[in-house]
Parts: sequence; C-alpha cells; structure tokens
Amino acid sequence: MTRPISILGATGSVGASTLDLIRRNRDQWRVVALTANCNANELAALAREFEAEIAVVGDESCLADLRTALADTAVTAAGGRQALCDAAALPADITVAAIVGCAGLRPTMTAIRRGGAVALANKEALVSAGTVMTAAVAEHGTTLLPVDSEHNAIFQCLQGSRIADVRSITLTASGGPFRGWSADQLARATPAQAVAHPNWDMGAKISVDSATMMNKGLEFIEAHHLFPVGLDALRIVVHPQSVVHSMVEYCDGSTLAQLGPSDMRVPIASCLAWPGRMETPCAPLDLAAIGSLTFEAPDEQRFPATRLARDAAHSGGGAPAVLNAANEVAVASFLAGQIAFTQIALVVEETLDRYAPLAPSTLDDVLAVDTEARVRAREIMETAAIG
Amino acid sequence: MTRPISILGATGSVGASTLDLIRRNRDQWRVVALTANCNANELAALAREFEAEIAVVGDESCLADLRTALADTAVTAAGGRQALCDAAALPADITVAAIVGCAGLRPTMTAIRRGGAVALANKEALVSAGTVMTAAVAEHGTTLLPVDSEHNAIFQCLQGSRIADVRSITLTASGGPFRGWSADQLARATPAQAVAHPNWDMGAKISVDSATMMNKGLEFIEAHHLFPVGLDALRIVVHPQSVVHSMVEYCDGSTLAQLGPSDMRVPIASCLAWPGRMETPCAPLDLAAIGSLTFEAPDEQRFPATRLARDAAHSGGGAPAVLNAANEVAVASFLAGQIAFTQIALVVEETLDRYAPLAPSTLDDVLAVDTEARVRAREIMETAAIG
Repeated sequence: MTRPISILGATGSVGASTLDLIRRNRDQWRVVALTANCNANELAALAREFEAEIAVVGDESCLADLRTALADTAVTAAGGRQALCDAAALPADITVAAIVGCAGLRPTMTAIRRGGAVALANKEALVSAGTVMTAAVAEHGTTLLPVDSEHNAIFQCLQGSRIADVRSITLTASGGPFRGWSADQLARATPAQAVAHPNWDMGAKISVDSATMMNKGLEFIEAHHLFPVGLDALRIVVHPQSVVHSMVEYCDGSTLAQLGPSDMRVPIASCLAWPGRMETPCAPLDLAAIGSLTFEAPDEQRFPATRLARDAAHSGGGAPAVLNAANEVAVASFLAGQIAFTQIALVVEETLDRYAPLAPSTLDDVLAVDTEARVRAREIMETAAIG
Repeated sequence: MTRPISILGATGSVGASTLDLIRRNRDQWRVVALTANCNANELAALAREFEAEIAVVGDESCLADLRTALADTAVTAAGGRQALCDAAALPADITVAAIVGCAGLRPTMTAIRRGGAVALANKEALVSAGTVMTAAVAEHGTTLLPVDSEHNAIFQCLQGSRIADVRSITLTASGGPFRGWSADQLARATPAQAVAHPNWDMGAKISVDSATMMNKGLEFIEAHHLFPVGLDALRIVVHPQSVVHSMVEYCDGSTLAQLGPSDMRVPIASCLAWPGRMETPCAPLDLAAIGSLTFEAPDEQRFPATRLARDAAHSGGGAPAVLNAANEVAVASFLAGQIAFTQIALVVEETLDRYAPLAPSTLDDVLAVDTEARVRAREIMETAAIG
C-alpha cells in the first residue's frame, strides 16, 4: 500500500527534507503534486525523480520552462495561483503545506478543506489566519500536524493525553545570536550578525526573527491556535542548546519534553508517520556528550517581540496579522540597512498601536489586513515615527 | 462513582504518598484493604480515617494491638502472611503494591492474579521474580503501572506509541552522594556519608544502593522486564539534578523525556489516574530557576554495580535474584560497619560467580534462590573471599 502525498513548496528546506524521507521509503509513497514558486528546473527534476502526477509553479511566467523541462515525462505541468490551489485539492492522504508567506494561505486552506491530514509548515496560516484556519480544520475534520520543531514537540508530548489535563505548555527558544548582548550592542547589530543562527541553518528573514525573538512570538500565537490551553498557560523559556524542542506540563506535575537533533527531518517524519513512527537517519541523542542543557527566563526588555506577540494574541482579531505583516516589512528594511535592529520591534509596536482592524472572518479579510498593515508599517518607517 | 483501591504497604513512604492523594480526592475513592508489617497503631489510624474494609498486619504478633485499636470501628482486622494475600485478592480496581522486599512478593503476585491494575512499587517483584511476574501479568491481562519515578517516566513517554518504534530507553541516575569521589575516597566511605542522598529522602538501604549505583542496576533489570526493547537498547546516563526522570528515544530521532519534582506523588498520581491524569499539589517545574541540567556517562570502574546488573540481566535465570539478595546482605554488612563501601560490589560479584542457579519458574523457586544467595554472600564475607 502506497500513501498519496502532495508537497506544496517542494523546493524549499521543508520540501527537501520531506522528499529526503520519501526517497528513503519510496515503496511507501506515491507523490501526487509538487509545487514551487518559480524554480522550474529544480521542480522538474524532483517531479521526474518522484514520478509526481503534477508539478505546479506559482509564478505563471515560469510555466514555459517547467513544460520544457518535463516534456518527455508523464508529469502534468501547470502554473499560476489557481493551479496551486487546484493541485492542493487533488486527493492525497497527507499534504505538506510548506509554501512560505501569505502566498501559501490559499493553497493551505484548500488542502485543509480537502480533509485528510495537513502537515503545516506555513507560519502565516496560524499566525495571521489562525481563527479562519482552525475553523476550517474543525469544519472539515482535518488532522493538522505541526511541522515546526516546537509545535511538533508539543504535539508529540500530548499524544495519549487530554488537553484538559494540561497545566502549561512551554515553548523553548534558542535566544538567537544576540542572547547575551546589551541594549547598546543590540542597537548596533548588523544584518550579517543577525543571520548567523547558532543552531539551525535558516533563511535570512527567519534568522532575523530568531535574533529579535519575534520567531518565538509568532510560534506563541501558533501554539495558541493549535493547543487551546489558554494564553496564560503558554510559556517561553530560553534554552540556548535547542535540544529540548518544547514541553507540556500536566496537572499531576509531570512534564513531558521532546528532545532531538536540530534536523527538520525529525518533526517531518513524525508528521508523515503519525500516529506511528518512521525511521530517520538522524543520529541518536547523546546527552552525556552534550553535557549540559541550560534554561533562562526571556528578557522582554531587550527582546520585546514576545511581549508584542502575546499582547497581539490577547487582542485577537486582526492584531496577529498586523504584527506579522509589520514585522516582515520591518525585517526587510533592517536587512536592507534602512533601520536599526532594535527598531524592528518599535515598527511592529507602532503599527499595532495605529492599526486595529476588525476580526477577519475570511482569507480575503486576512489578506486585506496584511496588505494594509504593510502600508502602515512603511509609512511609520518613512516618517521616522519610531524611537 | 468511587474506585475501589487497596494499598499493600500503607504505612511506608509510597503508601503515605498514595493516601495523601486519596485524602485530597476522598469522594473518588473507596479504600478496600490497607496493610502494614507491624505498625498497628498507624495502620489503625489510617484504616479509621479512610474507612477501609480491612486492615492487615503481616506480622501476626501485632494483630492483637490492631484489633484493640480498631475495636470501635467497622474495619475488619487480620494478621499474618496468608491474610496479606487474602487482602490482595479482594476485588479492587487498582492495588498499590508497596511492600518492601521479598515479603511483598506473594501479596503482589496475588494482586496480579486478581487482574485489574497493579501499581508496582515493590522492586523485588521485577528484579528477582521478573519472568514469573510478567508471565502472570500476561496470563491474567493485568495492567502493570510502574510507580518508580524512572519507570513511570518511561511509561509516560511510551503512551500513544508502539514499543516496536523505540530505538532506546535511557534511565537517568543521580549518581548518588559519591559521584565525584575517587576510588580511594570510595574505599573509605562511611554509612553516614552513604545515606545522605542529594535529591530524594529515602531509607538507608536504598540510599546505599543509590551511592553504589546498584539502585540503577536494579532499575535496569526492572526496565528490561517492563519494556521489552532488548538489553542493548537500555541505557543509563548520570543526571545529578534528578529533574529528568528517564527518556525514550524513537526510531525517528525524537526523544521523549518526563521531568518533574522529586516527589513520589507525581508518579503515583500518574498510576492512580491512568490513562487520565489527576491534580497533585506539586509545584510547577521552573527550568529557568533550575538553570542547568547536566548529563554524564556512568563510570563503571568506580561504580561497577550497573555492570553487574546488566551482566545478570544478560545471564537471566536466577542471576538477578542472586544479585539482589547478595546486595541486600552486603549493604546490611556495610551499614553495620563490617565491610567497606567498595566491598559491596565485590560481594555481589563473587556471589554471582559462585552461585548460578537454574531459572526459577515459580515464586517458591525465586524465594529459594534468594535464601541460598544470602547464605552464599554471608559465607563470602565471613571467609574474606573478597578483594
């Protein structure tokens, strides 16, 4: 028996890790759809290797290249935003939703509405559109499997237990490359320093989010939607070694933690094989070799992003979408050398102060809030309305 | 709906912790049998408070006192070894088997044969009589719930998963009070130094076992019977803070760990409420306050007990019962000032070398091995046949 699987965002890092696992177990899987934004040649090579039914580029201008590259195969080539959603709607046991950014919202929503299982790696789905997405999950009886290492850890620690028995959930945070830095040092931090993450190999934007701790703030909002224990029961602890990926404390005083290597194949394998397990080639954990795991409280004076995210989660409505959009714009400006590192959080805070939209009830609402928040954030930066 | 419960060994520390939890949830429980060895007054007070059906002293000479103390109550008083077994056979949802030593073997076996759930705190049941006990568990469809914090941690980490997906199980060990001591220092260690355990408040015998690491060796054998992953997949790591109580690593590279305070009410509550959870008054885990968790490989040169236990588990048959009996005799001699600390392991090793009985197939066989091993161990000490 082979399981049909689709991967939205096949050429990114989550897509590559997923396909690495499938490559090791080819007889167990049948690849339905593979998608990319515009990387036609790499997508074509993957579609060829995995004998996908369909390969889709989100950017229609890349479709000609894709067609050429797949001309001698049985793989259907398609392009454009609607084609992404059509691919997500094809029957599959499990869809890995790994398109980065708001571009992933509609295809992810389509996969959720199809039912079955969705392994979710698109942050915006829960940060910006959390209420809309979780309503669709409930309506269609979809199984949402979190790919993020932290949320996957929590998901694993909840297996066999009831959410009602949870006393608290603690997200671990590496603290990023600036963990020990003073406020003065932070104000002078450069993009090159920010993208050097100590434990994970990541893209520039998420590396900056790790440095500001906004990444943990976004994960806090995601966790709030995935695991309804209440905001007051959600915690963050800084754990520089990134060995403990997160924890669940139960009402009896037991805390279950998931530990593992900083290798996305572990949480992805956990999603693919759920409710079972599958082999990965990841090295065994050797705690005696690691020696020491340390923990410290986050410092929200130097790193205000988690406070902003928690406040946005408390506000609800469109606030998380505003937070996320303003952060993206501010991070891009920081990477372009236009604002200081410490101004990222100030831009986000100011945008949240100035723009409090009504609660979005559809994806269109979410996308409208996202667009407007970006405009506001840019205005704030242009008028220098930040400290 | 109240759940009927019996506690074998009600006046010991596990019994006291169990009754503390029941006291906080009196409306949910109906106490059937409470037993003690000879502490008639304390047993009577507990039986009175919890309105037990029956109170039993194992030592028949204490029955008169028990009868007097319970004269004005509806509690039935009984005494003697057969009465312990009769009490264990009374219908109950769950029996907490917490009688220390070989005296607990028959009542524990009776509870296992009755079926239902047995929360097991009697080490000898699995160390000395592991094969006999687990065969009875399988035959009677009994649910065995481990009370020991390490095995309970493993049990929790296995919930919702299949044992076939386990790559390894790691028992954590505090390392005891002599963790950093040199061989010379160990040779001069006194009983007073050995009983000062850093993390748990325990009796003298188990404190010495912690100091020699034999406690971990015995737990290794227990784990081998409780969690059939194979001896090569069972590990021990020294973790001086005793916050992580043990871990399970799965084939995908995920490790689940259970953490918590050094309070037996946590694992006991986990057993009582299984497969659910119940509240305990134990303080939440504050890893930021703890700061650091450290891990190191055990040093089997200085602490050979875990090697001896692993070898005994590999040998199988009566070897674990011999190990346990020889250790008890040697620890008693150490506490009496008759042998040096480092001679405890030598006595155990020599006894195992000299006495390799056939595999016990009944409890009588186990008890006969136990008795003979004690004789041999004493002989070895008397003839100074150790280094």
